[in-house]
Amino acid sequence: MGFIGEAHMAMQFNSDNVARVHPKVWAAMQAADSPDKGYDGDALSQRLDAVFSDLFGRPAAVLWTATGTSANCLALGPLVQPHGGVVCHREAHIETDECGAPGFYLHGAKLMLAEGAGAKLTPNSIEAVLATVKREIHQVPAQAISVTQATEYGLVYRPEELAAIGALAKERGLGLHLDGARFANAVAFLGCPAAQAAGPVDVVCFGGTKNGGMDADAVVFFDPEHADHARWRRKRAGHLQSKGRFLAAQLLALVEGDLWLTNARAANLAAQEIAAAAKERLMHPVEANEVFLIASRAERESLRAQGFAFYDWDEHSARLVASWDTLPEHATALGKAIAAL
Amino acid sequence: MGFIGEAHMAMQFNSDNVARVHPKVWAAMQAADSPDKGYDGDALSQRLDAVFSDLFGRPAAVLWTATGTSANCLALGPLVQPHGGVVCHREAHIETDECGAPGFYLHGAKLMLAEGAGAKLTPNSIEAVLATVKREIHQVPAQAISVTQATEYGLVYRPEELAAIGALAKERGLGLHLDGARFANAVAFLGCPAAQAAGPVDVVCFGGTKNGGMDADAVVFFDPEHADHARWRRKRAGHLQSKGRFLAAQLLALVEGDLWLTNARAANLAAQEIAAAAKERLMHPVEANEVFLIASRAERESLRAQGFAFYDWDEHSARLVASWDTLPEHATALGKAIAAL
Amino acid sequence: MGFIGEAHMAMQFNSDNVARVHPKVWAAMQAADSPDKGYDGDALSQRLDAVFSDLFGRPAAVLWTATGTSANCLALGPLVQPHGGVVCHREAHIETDECGAPGFYLHGAKLMLAEGAGAKLTPNSIEAVLATVKREIHQVPAQAISVTQATEYGLVYRPEELAAIGALAKERGLGLHLDGARFANAVAFLGCPAAQAAGPVDVVCFGGTKNGGMDADAVVFFDPEHADHARWRRKRAGHLQSKGRFLAAQLLALVEGDLWLTNARAANLAAQEIAAAAKERLMHPVEANEVFLIASRAERESLRAQGFAFYDWDEHSARLVASWDTLPEHATALGKAIAAL
Amino acid sequence: MGFIGEAHMAMQFNSDNVARVHPKVWAAMQAADSPDKGYDGDALSQRLDAVFSDLFGRPAAVLWTATGTSANCLALGPLVQPHGGVVCHREAHIETDECGAPGFYLHGAKLMLAEGAGAKLTPNSIEAVLATVKREIHQVPAQAISVTQATEYGLVYRPEELAAIGALAKERGLGLHLDGARFANAVAFLGCPAAQAAGPVDVVCFGGTKNGGMDADAVVFFDPEHADHARWRRKRAGHLQSKGRFLAAQLLALVEGDLWLTNARAANLAAQEIAAAAKERLMHPVEANEVFLIASRAERESLRAQGFAFYDWDEHSARLVASWDTLPEHATALGKAIAAL
Repeated sequence: MGFIGEAHMAMQFNSDNVARVHPKVWAAMQAADSPDKGYDGDALSQRLDAVFSDLFGRPAAVLWTATGTSANCLALGPLVQPHGGVVCHREAHIETDECGAPGFYLHGAKLMLAEGAGAKLTPNSIEAVLATVKREIHQVPAQAISVTQATEYGLVYRPEELAAIGALAKERGLGLHLDGARFANAVAFLGCPAAQAAGPVDVVCFGGTKNGGMDADAVVFFDPEHADHARWRRKRAGHLQSKGRFLAAQLLALVEGDLWLTNARAANLAAQEIAAAAKERLMHPVEANEVFLIASRAERESLRAQGFAFYDWDEHSARLVASWDTLPEHATALGKAIAAL
Repeated sequence: MGFIGEAHMAMQFNSDNVARVHPKVWAAMQAADSPDKGYDGDALSQRLDAVFSDLFGRPAAVLWTATGTSANCLALGPLVQPHGGVVCHREAHIETDECGAPGFYLHGAKLMLAEGAGAKLTPNSIEAVLATVKREIHQVPAQAISVTQATEYGLVYRPEELAAIGALAKERGLGLHLDGARFANAVAFLGCPAAQAAGPVDVVCFGGTKNGGMDADAVVFFDPEHADHARWRRKRAGHLQSKGRFLAAQLLALVEGDLWLTNARAANLAAQEIAAAAKERLMHPVEANEVFLIASRAERESLRAQGFAFYDWDEHSARLVASWDTLPEHATALGKAIAAL
Repeated sequence: MGFIGEAHMAMQFNSDNVARVHPKVWAAMQAADSPDKGYDGDALSQRLDAVFSDLFGRPAAVLWTATGTSANCLALGPLVQPHGGVVCHREAHIETDECGAPGFYLHGAKLMLAEGAGAKLTPNSIEAVLATVKREIHQVPAQAISVTQATEYGLVYRPEELAAIGALAKERGLGLHLDGARFANAVAFLGCPAAQAAGPVDVVCFGGTKNGGMDADAVVFFDPEHADHARWRRKRAGHLQSKGRFLAAQLLALVEGDLWLTNARAANLAAQEIAAAAKERLMHPVEANEVFLIASRAERESLRAQGFAFYDWDEHSARLVASWDTLPEHATALGKAIAAL
Repeated sequence: MGFIGEAHMAMQFNSDNVARVHPKVWAAMQAADSPDKGYDGDALSQRLDAVFSDLFGRPAAVLWTATGTSANCLALGPLVQPHGGVVCHREAHIETDECGAPGFYLHGAKLMLAEGAGAKLTPNSIEAVLATVKREIHQVPAQAISVTQATEYGLVYRPEELAAIGALAKERGLGLHLDGARFANAVAFLGCPAAQAAGPVDVVCFGGTKNGGMDADAVVFFDPEHADHARWRRKRAGHLQSKGRFLAAQLLALVEGDLWLTNARAANLAAQEIAAAAKERLMHPVEANEVFLIASRAERESLRAQGFAFYDWDEHSARLVASWDTLPEHATALGKAIAAL
């Protein structure tokens, strides 16, 4: 297993979804391979509430689902009516990369796009969006705010930043959703408890797939009625897998023994090494596992010719993503190659 | 691995979703665990079209998805507009067990319920439904027919039965969808090529999860435009897994080496053994891997006391489902226990 | 104005939607033709709550809308979630004649079809539907009951019948909706206050269009939160007319001076006269303004040849609908013609 | 009838939806008040195709509907799939003033917002939006363009501007929709045939309500299959009025005798008179019947104190809308008052 020595394989910085499944996750899945109740009636699925309640330090009701897109949509479902809206960043994943999934799951509800450096929302940028909505029947009323931790540009909200957004949400009567596809990377960066890294949110989408899992994210609700709502919607969306024990197993393997943090720290470390070598080329501070690199077309070609795989971000930059299984020597090599450009 | 000797485990006839993942499927998934393109860009996903085209003897475009519910809904999507309807059996899975998923995926389209013994449709029962719709704007127009092979009661359509339904569909300009959650069991029973067992359909949902897989079904389209449509809808429904190679691996493991038929034959054989011992108690002929058994409450309690796990179907009957990994001695024991009631 | 003496016009029993607009309604609309606030901010629209609160003897929040289909869907909206269901009669208008509008407005929610003579529900027939739903995630949960007063076959629920259904709804935690496209005819038949004829419902759709109006029905909510919900949905469905004062004017003209009852009594009386002449041919007792008449094709042809216009109901019967403006001599003539068949 | 002399009434420049119904429209509606077939089977509705085909010089299939919001949504329905998008201006009515109706009618399809002075799109601004969509499954694909004639700021596309947008639409395979709530005002301004003022569009929403009608707009399709689609959707949305003859009557009264142009010319003329007096205060050139006026709060108060009713546009401006029935002396007075500020 593994790709070292496979001459045709590049050094991978394409995406965390290229990463392998962690051996401990494999082991947990295989240990789950004996008969148990179907759907989420199995013993593993039944343990999720307790495990995530511990993690977040308050009672949680948890649903597994196979993808981040479905996690986000199931999380928003109880917060937003079909005629309502969700304030999110203009470059939020739910806006730019989910092919309209929120419009589908929320039955036509609207994403209301806010500004903010590094894809981070602020109370001010949220207020600016809310101000465009006059309080009347002709316009979609905002009903929730969605933040991403870490953001699409790899920035991490500080606890006080989330607290400020949470205060605004509360004041305006808006739900607060956290897209945590890379939440582990944010917590690893902050070095604080998960609860502080999540802030006063109603629901966290806790990513497992990008962080050593195969296909399991957790939707962590802090209001049990929200979870009840989402259970119906998960089944209705065809996401209630009949052998759900395998998804629960992945999440438990990640969370019960700190593997989620170990993996995230490894990915962050690799990103830091690259960033250190690329200081004057960084589009954004590197806080999680993504490096956005200013690089001309020729420079990108040069890196690829040296065996590095990654995606162009736009005409003047590249996105380099480190994973839990990024080899330290690959990160070192990439750093050197960038420095030598 | 396995549950023999685990004193607390019953002899399992609850459902095929209790069954384990076949060792060859595990092996294929682990072999898939090296970096490749994300979503369905990987080499394994790219092989599905060819493999299923071979299986069905005509060009096919194939999408993996993790559940039967999503498979059915993605399959119906290109056939039915939001203001249209799907004729299906009153007891079809899409009507009774998917929590309204077709209403969600098809944006409010209507299931139009037909009768038929053993949950089988006939041209007559379909015509009876069509006749209730006057050709005018006040009623939902039928746009597709959905059949289940094998049916929810374990009956198998014969090729000529499907041909007759297909002829009707063509005559009326209706799409034809086949829910094949247990298609393998039907093919194993018929002993004919897959193409004949599917009939002149537009799309087959080919079940893998109940037949040795973990969480992979295939939506097999015979019209490439339908597949294009479904690709957008799969992403939009959050079913485009980022590490899709693991779903493709499951399907390839099942289909490339006849494992799908081997597994289905084993399940059918176990069901036959039980059926042979329960002839006068059968609600329906046993053709696939399900036995619907007339049994009083006391009789069912007696079976459970002997260590057999299964679900009640209603107040007077039980549903016994054999799986690819049902131990022959368990089937024999169940047969004897039924005969001794 | 009017059709007497127009040789080419039949004596009309096709439908109440063929009927003319009552002169008092015309007058009210014309009186409304001076500038006022748009949408429902005008003085007439603002009067509706008070007028209907008086009519029903309890606080009501009222929205006008132009059609019965939109009225029913806006009324059900606050009662049913997209993953929920509405128990209604198999022949309810929302099931058979609205082209799937409830599926559209309720985002895929399901109509759960109950039986009952004359299209009337009973607690038993409702319970029979509820019993088919096991309390679990795989099936759509019922969230509301919809009754039609008078029913699609012109039968009228007695107050005690509605009370019994209301008690069941309360016990099961279900909303209760009344489709009152012909509510006026029911009240005219019962001779009781509107509140008794509506029973313990959450919302009444009060028909104006079939009863002397042009295009105005009222959705009468008894929970102001429901009305708030429906206001967003009305706009979102494109039913918030900018010159809404003309719809309000119609409703006020009908309700403020008992015109609604006068009109309904006239229609009922005409239907009674026909029914009296057709006793042994009636499919259902005639309680409102519809007569369902057993008549062979030849007999129907004969009636048409004598100048009567009406629709066939099925191969063995006709539907004859009297309106507020049915001329007494036409009803008499039709009665005689039927008696002479 | 009328508001002159009513001391409490302001001189009205709030909106064209405050305007009265034109006497000829009243007359046509009353002439329609005799029995005919229901829905759109009546003789008047049946005449719409021919009348609008004449108007636009090519075969058209026409549906009436009561509101501009429903007209736009029914028009877009055949052009856009639920997973698709519509490029429109950031300030288009469908984006800012329909409470998410397109999201509802199009089942979650996305509005993709483009820039442009005066709410006018250009090929460049459309291309800029299209360029943000990479051709892959993660992003919503554009499927249509929507333009508004005259725009939300009262600007009028010239035929060559629409031709250029039409060419782009054709090249990209996109549908082209024209929101013509104030199409009459645009044609009156251009002085060209309707076909030229509409450009190479697939569908025109032809506004009647703001231009002397009561509640009737026409959705004018140039592809009969689109119209077939919209007929189902209109019924399903509860917009198929049972006495549709009254909507058809309004449209015929407006279009058959050039009343639509006469009315629009009167409104435009009043706006011109105001504009002429306010040259250095205009936010936009005045081409149709709307004047956007730079005016401080104190100045707006002053105008209101003089008896003029209008809405604030933002903190520094007012929107003044002239209607078909704006009295010339009111327009003159308003112009003088502005000049005297």
